[in-house]
Amino acid sequence: MNKKTLKKLLTDVKSGDCNIEDALMKLSNFPMEDIEGACIDHHRNIRTGIPEIIYGASKSAKQIASIAEAIRKRSDRVIATRVSTKKAKKIQANLYWLTYHKKAKILTGNIPPTKKTLGRGNIVVLTAGTSDLPVAEEASITAESLGHKVTRIYDVGVAGLHRLLNHQQTLQNATVIIVVAGMEGALPSVVGGLVSCPVIAVPTSVGYGTSFGGLTALLAMLNSCASGIAVVNIDNGFGAACMAIAINK
Amino acid sequence: MNKKTLKKLLTDVKSGDCNIEDALMKLSNFPMEDIEGACIDHHRNIRTGIPEIIYGASKSAKQIASIAEAIRKRSDRVIATRVSTKKAKKIQANLYWLTYHKKAKILTGNIPPTKKTLGRGNIVVLTAGTSDLPVAEEASITAESLGHKVTRIYDVGVAGLHRLLNHQQTLQNATVIIVVAGMEGALPSVVGGLVSCPVIAVPTSVGYGTSFGGLTALLAMLNSCASGIAVVNIDNGFGAACMAIAINK
Amino acid sequence: MNKKTLKKLLTDVKSGDCNIEDALMKLSNFPMEDIEGACIDHHRNIRTGIPEIIYGASKSAKQIASIAEAIRKRSDRVIATRVSTKKAKKIQANLYWLTYHKKAKILTGNIPPTKKTLGRGNIVVLTAGTSDLPVAEEASITAESLGHKVTRIYDVGVAGLHRLLNHQQTLQNATVIIVVAGMEGALPSVVGGLVSCPVIAVPTSVGYGTSFGGLTALLAMLNSCASGIAVVNIDNGFGAACMAIAINK
Amino acid sequence: MNKKTLKKLLTDVKSGDCNIEDALMKLSNFPMEDIEGACIDHHRNIRTGIPEIIYGASKSAKQIASIAEAIRKRSDRVIATRVSTKKAKKIQANLYWLTYHKKAKILTGNIPPTKKTLGRGNIVVLTAGTSDLPVAEEASITAESLGHKVTRIYDVGVAGLHRLLNHQQTLQNATVIIVVAGMEGALPSVVGGLVSCPVIAVPTSVGYGTSFGGLTALLAMLNSCASGIAVVNIDNGFGAACMAIAINK
Amino acid sequence: MNKKTLKKLLTDVKSGDCNIEDALMKLSNFPMEDIEGACIDHHRNIRTGIPEIIYGASKSAKQIASIAEAIRKRSDRVIATRVSTKKAKKIQANLYWLTYHKKAKILTGNIPPTKKTLGRGNIVVLTAGTSDLPVAEEASITAESLGHKVTRIYDVGVAGLHRLLNHQQTLQNATVIIVVAGMEGALPSVVGGLVSCPVIAVPTSVGYGTSFGGLTALLAMLNSCASGIAVVNIDNGFGAACMAIAINK
Amino acid sequence: MNKKTLKKLLTDVKSGDCNIEDALMKLSNFPMEDIEGACIDHHRNIRTGIPEIIYGASKSAKQIASIAEAIRKRSDRVIATRVSTKKAKKIQANLYWLTYHKKAKILTGNIPPTKKTLGRGNIVVLTAGTSDLPVAEEASITAESLGHKVTRIYDVGVAGLHRLLNHQQTLQNATVIIVVAGMEGALPSVVGGLVSCPVIAVPTSVGYGTSFGGLTALLAMLNSCASGIAVVNIDNGFGAACMAIAINK
Amino acid sequence: MNKKTLKKLLTDVKSGDCNIEDALMKLSNFPMEDIEGACIDHHRNIRTGIPEIIYGASKSAKQIASIAEAIRKRSDRVIATRVSTKKAKKIQANLYWLTYHKKAKILTGNIPPTKKTLGRGNIVVLTAGTSDLPVAEEASITAESLGHKVTRIYDVGVAGLHRLLNHQQTLQNATVIIVVAGMEGALPSVVGGLVSCPVIAVPTSVGYGTSFGGLTALLAMLNSCASGIAVVNIDNGFGAACMAIAINK
Amino acid sequence: MNKKTLKKLLTDVKSGDCNIEDALMKLSNFPMEDIEGACIDHHRNIRTGIPEIIYGASKSAKQIASIAEAIRKRSDRVIATRVSTKKAKKIQANLYWLTYHKKAKILTGNIPPTKKTLGRGNIVVLTAGTSDLPVAEEASITAESLGHKVTRIYDVGVAGLHRLLNHQQTLQNATVIIVVAGMEGALPSVVGGLVSCPVIAVPTSVGYGTSFGGLTALLAMLNSCASGIAVVNIDNGFGAACMAIAINK
Repeated sequence: MNKKTLKKLLTDVKSGDCNIEDALMKLSNFPMEDIEGACIDHHRNIRTGIPEIIYGASKSAKQIASIAEAIRKRSDRVIATRVSTKKAKKIQANLYWLTYHKKAKILTGNIPPTKKTLGRGNIVVLTAGTSDLPVAEEASITAESLGHKVTRIYDVGVAGLHRLLNHQQTLQNATVIIVVAGMEGALPSVVGGLVSCPVIAVPTSVGYGTSFGGLTALLAMLNSCASGIAVVNIDNGFGAACMAIAINK
Repeated sequence: MNKKTLKKLLTDVKSGDCNIEDALMKLSNFPMEDIEGACIDHHRNIRTGIPEIIYGASKSAKQIASIAEAIRKRSDRVIATRVSTKKAKKIQANLYWLTYHKKAKILTGNIPPTKKTLGRGNIVVLTAGTSDLPVAEEASITAESLGHKVTRIYDVGVAGLHRLLNHQQTLQNATVIIVVAGMEGALPSVVGGLVSCPVIAVPTSVGYGTSFGGLTALLAMLNSCASGIAVVNIDNGFGAACMAIAINK
Repeated sequence: MNKKTLKKLLTDVKSGDCNIEDALMKLSNFPMEDIEGACIDHHRNIRTGIPEIIYGASKSAKQIASIAEAIRKRSDRVIATRVSTKKAKKIQANLYWLTYHKKAKILTGNIPPTKKTLGRGNIVVLTAGTSDLPVAEEASITAESLGHKVTRIYDVGVAGLHRLLNHQQTLQNATVIIVVAGMEGALPSVVGGLVSCPVIAVPTSVGYGTSFGGLTALLAMLNSCASGIAVVNIDNGFGAACMAIAINK
Repeated sequence: MNKKTLKKLLTDVKSGDCNIEDALMKLSNFPMEDIEGACIDHHRNIRTGIPEIIYGASKSAKQIASIAEAIRKRSDRVIATRVSTKKAKKIQANLYWLTYHKKAKILTGNIPPTKKTLGRGNIVVLTAGTSDLPVAEEASITAESLGHKVTRIYDVGVAGLHRLLNHQQTLQNATVIIVVAGMEGALPSVVGGLVSCPVIAVPTSVGYGTSFGGLTALLAMLNSCASGIAVVNIDNGFGAACMAIAINK
Repeated sequence: MNKKTLKKLLTDVKSGDCNIEDALMKLSNFPMEDIEGACIDHHRNIRTGIPEIIYGASKSAKQIASIAEAIRKRSDRVIATRVSTKKAKKIQANLYWLTYHKKAKILTGNIPPTKKTLGRGNIVVLTAGTSDLPVAEEASITAESLGHKVTRIYDVGVAGLHRLLNHQQTLQNATVIIVVAGMEGALPSVVGGLVSCPVIAVPTSVGYGTSFGGLTALLAMLNSCASGIAVVNIDNGFGAACMAIAINK
Repeated sequence: MNKKTLKKLLTDVKSGDCNIEDALMKLSNFPMEDIEGACIDHHRNIRTGIPEIIYGASKSAKQIASIAEAIRKRSDRVIATRVSTKKAKKIQANLYWLTYHKKAKILTGNIPPTKKTLGRGNIVVLTAGTSDLPVAEEASITAESLGHKVTRIYDVGVAGLHRLLNHQQTLQNATVIIVVAGMEGALPSVVGGLVSCPVIAVPTSVGYGTSFGGLTALLAMLNSCASGIAVVNIDNGFGAACMAIAINK
Repeated sequence: MNKKTLKKLLTDVKSGDCNIEDALMKLSNFPMEDIEGACIDHHRNIRTGIPEIIYGASKSAKQIASIAEAIRKRSDRVIATRVSTKKAKKIQANLYWLTYHKKAKILTGNIPPTKKTLGRGNIVVLTAGTSDLPVAEEASITAESLGHKVTRIYDVGVAGLHRLLNHQQTLQNATVIIVVAGMEGALPSVVGGLVSCPVIAVPTSVGYGTSFGGLTALLAMLNSCASGIAVVNIDNGFGAACMAIAINK
Repeated sequence: MNKKTLKKLLTDVKSGDCNIEDALMKLSNFPMEDIEGACIDHHRNIRTGIPEIIYGASKSAKQIASIAEAIRKRSDRVIATRVSTKKAKKIQANLYWLTYHKKAKILTGNIPPTKKTLGRGNIVVLTAGTSDLPVAEEASITAESLGHKVTRIYDVGVAGLHRLLNHQQTLQNATVIIVVAGMEGALPSVVGGLVSCPVIAVPTSVGYGTSFGGLTALLAMLNSCASGIAVVNIDNGFGAACMAIAINK
């Protein structure tokens, strides 16, 4: 039942072609049909600024390519995350209009030129080490592709505090800060003590032994002694970007 | 080294009482002293709108009372979280000006009358069940005591969807939503699919057996299939409120 | 929006008191309101045969008592689970018409006399040891209070196979079997190999050391080499009964 | 067979009312010696409708092929699960009569034409996302190959509720519903709140980071706030089908 | 009893070479009906030397007392484990003939005077520290009450090797050694390197922090670099004694 | 200090070349030198009947080969465990006298013809499923290569009890039983309830999902409700054989 | 075999009362007897400066008191850790000469006046928060009671960096630093980046939810990105002090 | 702000080109800039004797090579850890002056000839087994490359105590001992009981099944009953060397 069919029903009620009892039954039985579904979907994309993103990890190059083309036909932004270099090459062989962001493992296309960035301000993305860069880039490229301004500050881990402290001005001007860190995951606590804006902590799977693939960093971030911090899943740069965009709107 | 001593040093340099080399050494060795420390603290409170909060769990009634009095003398808002009913009674016996929020286990006092709420808009606090209420109230009272507007929608878990769906209007008008849920922690995913604002998920220790004191809810929330969601520690209503306030500023 | 208001709306459309565009907007915006909500609730109780059950663990004696009276006034069955002996005594002091099942920790009242049991057949409840009895009784009393026939076979653990094998006839006549076991949780595998009906395995927190409060039994049951077995949460006799009733209908 | 019937039998043997061969046969059918072993197996297959299924994961193509031929000679249905595409090709090279269900990774053959499906009704199989499809297909193909009717509803996860709500009619007509979901595993709770039939939840290893290979989904399902739900092992589509068949009989 | 012997029996019944009562008895001893159940139990006790032991932890003083009296009437040894001092006092108030072993938390009675110990030799029980003593005593008293000879060597942990090395002679004469240790659980590895007899390792819940209630000791013991070691559950002194007795027979 | 140097010291004391005080100091300071070390090693091999076994997993084909030759020169039995098929081929190319046991992944050579088996009796090795066979063979071949008699009973899991019950005679005649099982690890509990000899339980990594690589089977075995059972590390067939040999001596 | 019996043996060898072969055998068989044991003990205390410390947690007031008196009679320092306030009162009622350090939960007595502190320099003890104080005091009092100089810097957690940075001079002059922190355990990483001396990290059980009783802090510390850090067990202030003393010697 | 700009500021204050208020503001706002950062870094390297070490695991051969050349140009020691044999070959193809330590997986170059070793004494590195050797070599080569003296004692695990006891003299002369062990991780406890110097325990991922990739060894080491022991991450030979160097300075 979409808007058209609903309107038809109401018209029929008005005209007497459908009696009230029948209309009542139809409306009671299908309270949540296509129209609402479609509506919600439609509304959702418009209001969140987050169009359909292709999650590339569990799809073949062929599948990604055909979804990308379909989205492009609707004139939407095309963004595909977790696309390996190998898959990207295959896809680009046919779809020359796609750009591959190697570190972020993201393919983008059909991005409108951003004369004016969306959002209230500036999303700052920090990493503790150089190994956290791929996750940070997933966040950065996602946010940029969706029209938000991103400032990157990489490799400013807590074992060399001065590196971080040199960027205090930038941190204090941010609308929201994404902090990406593996190993002991201590950076969000230090950042949270320096700024007043919301901090999104992203644990990464960087480390070995008892880093347990990022679990240690995750737990540390959840137990931060600084306030104003929330956490996303391990290596989830994309999710952090979505949260940051929602905040920055 | 505080501002006074720093000024003294510069005056001495100017007057020649201290030569440049000596001043250089002193400044190099103490780059981060009291003045900056104090500054940061001072700045922090002003800009975050989060004054010193008393964490009552590890303090005696006596300790809480004396800190509360000290804060009141500075004319700041007095807020103490995780204060048991028993402790609260003892404290109120002497400090009649404190109000105890029983469900939230929070003591407040010296709260300025809020003619105008702070923040861009409305913080909505949801719970999945009635048992999640204490954590939700910790979040709600914290945010309200700090001057933000809070709308409570309690007991709208996913096993009875209609309860939640009745509140769609309110959800869509929120600046930020705090979703409090124990057991399988599914509510944030459903909410995240309905709204465009940021969602802060708070797992609670409600449940038994394999709920593992809230761990299951936490893990579910971190793995949400909806985007724009971030998570805080188990039962951390206070932390969720701080994040929400940072977003709502 | 309930049936009455919906009918009113349609009448208004028909009469022209409400134009089609306005009606369309109202219907699109509130597709899932009170009427559906109420409907679903109403339907749900009727069709599942599971009325509102009071979960007593997180409620005071006073709260349980007032809910119990409210349900009784609606002439529904009154069932409250996880009610401690102490709470039960307090409640019964006022509500003399409630029966306390001590081992099951369940209060029941207003149960209609069952001339004919509901369901296709017989629910058999097994336990591995005597310590698993409280969980088994929670399942048994729940099912019986809801009108189903239950056969109890207790203390037939795998270290003494003959005890179980003596009851093969009963097992093979069951519609569904609930197997309650702690420690190594092996009983469901053995039962699953003997029968063709569905087996619901309930791990209990019986044991010490590496039983980890029932986790070991749970894991063993999930990894059963027998087919036709599914598992519920640790100590969740109530949940097992609900599943059994759904099957037995 | 109890003492009385046993004594009767022996008396009949003595008197000649029962000849030795018949007595031997009767005694052999009980309790559990070689012949009984076979007996039970025989009975089991007949009554469960679950013939010997080949678990392909730990067997070579050669081993699977020879077991398949042996079963076919007994004129039974041939079903082999967890057969990789590579193995399947090798096997089909010789056994042309086998059909490979690629998504389900199942080989079937010798399936009798189902004029009439077995069971009381309809098994509905749901998935939260497209990545859960292989596990859902393992369940669906298993149930269909054993003669049961299956209705598939895929990709109806909780972050887009309307997709699920569109299928309420189908859900309410099911005899049993298998819900397949990874990540936060929330779908079974929502489904459990909508229907009265038993729900079998199947966690999948879909996800990353703290999804812990399906553990998070499993834990969420075990802690569902909806009743009438039971859970099988991670990715165990086959086990869910067996449970569903046992219920649907 | 195989087919041949069964046919022979029936033929003898028919011919009168075996009367019905004798045949009945023979058939009753096999396989596993009520009488057989009892049989197996009976046989089991005789051959293992392990009569019915009362597990006191989940029983009331009253329940323990009545079972103890029942066992005594059958003239069996009475042994009850995990009986708290408080329960023991209550029980002994009536049953004066019971002896309480305080450290072991075991009640014994009706133990026949052991002129000659059972078993091939000597069971040696070692502990790493003094805190492991209750578990060691549970093992020692159990074994002694069942008629086996026990040698105790307590507090010989690996941080003071000489303490252990002084007892090499005793270790090398043991039939089986029970090694009880908490914390890092290293003692079984060292003992396993010194002796040739089987070593049963018992982890205890002694320790704090990452000892995880004995899990660390358990894991260490399972990973011992010495061969000829097997492990029982945490704090399971009783189980170790049963294994030792089975070996020592 | 070896035997030679010790004898020299004593001779010097006797002759007066070394005075008693000097000898006393030397002996006190070096109580545990080469001679004892060598002694212990020597004694150990003789008394345990367990010569140096080559653990092949962490060694190259070349390394295994040279150790094997060295051991053979000392005329000892050559046994190498955890040798992959690939490594075995390389080794046998040069050392034609070695036999490869493919399922057990063991290389043996120089095994003396066993006219008479060592030990008091018979070691029985059981498996729950066919996938547990490699671990069972590691145990069986190890025990046989060291001169003990082994009886194999494979694929007698608890979901088809009759398969196990057919072998009761053999089980009751065993000196010690090794039970190898993955998945839910229930077989040792059932076996432990049938026999009086010691049972060594070996969890295997057979399974998927929540079998957690054998952890579930391990935990189940540690929590067995049957007594007289002890457990070794996951997949540790070799360790079980060593324990069995120590018992069977 | 103690020094006396050894001397006797050597005298007998010299006199010919014992021949060399017999002496050789005796010495070979008993290489590690009393004398060596006693020696090692004696040596150990002298060289480590760590006399026998009473671990009070698992001992009664009575037991602690009598050990304390025994140690005092040997004129040694008396130190008892993990003594509750209640136990301490009981003990001091008789042993007036003992001092109770309430925060550290340590009893000390007979401590020689420290004219000159032991060790190369200064042990600095840091805490992240005020709740970490009891563990820090356990470390501080232990080290002081054993004669080492301790500097305390408490409540300098990473969410307020300036607090720590104010103490850089003190940190850089330390011989070894003990860093005590709960929650996210980030402080050791920051300290490790500022100093060159060894850092001993002590996780505390301070926190709630996913702090898992200190496990999160422990894991974070083990994964520190700073070098020169090692970790002790949760809440193990005593162990940290012992390591610090060993370093400071 | 570096030293030059700071000096300029002070000169300007002195000359009056900058008034005191402006200088005060500049210094207050940028208390922790480049100069301090650089300073700290500079100081750190000098005082710790730990120059920039290349962590090779997450870098390509090309990246390692260019960093190595850059460091060499600064005339510093070149040390790269976790470099696979394959990467090392590629790097050495161009940079002939680098030495590859195969077992340690470390590349070194530009190491000054050590006429005199640094540090107070001798670092002893022990391993429990031969499989622990790579981790031990990572520690040993790191320490040696940084100018410290290392004594290696390998393969002295606790199942053959005499091997360790033969080296007591060496152990007692050490300044610090690194103990590397996998499996049950018992060696540090035994060593800690024999010596007075600090012991750094390094768990290794050697083992299988419940060794959980080194977690069991780690837990055992954290729970050691010997004092004066601290632990680093699993397989972290490099970290142990850094701690040892910090102690040995």
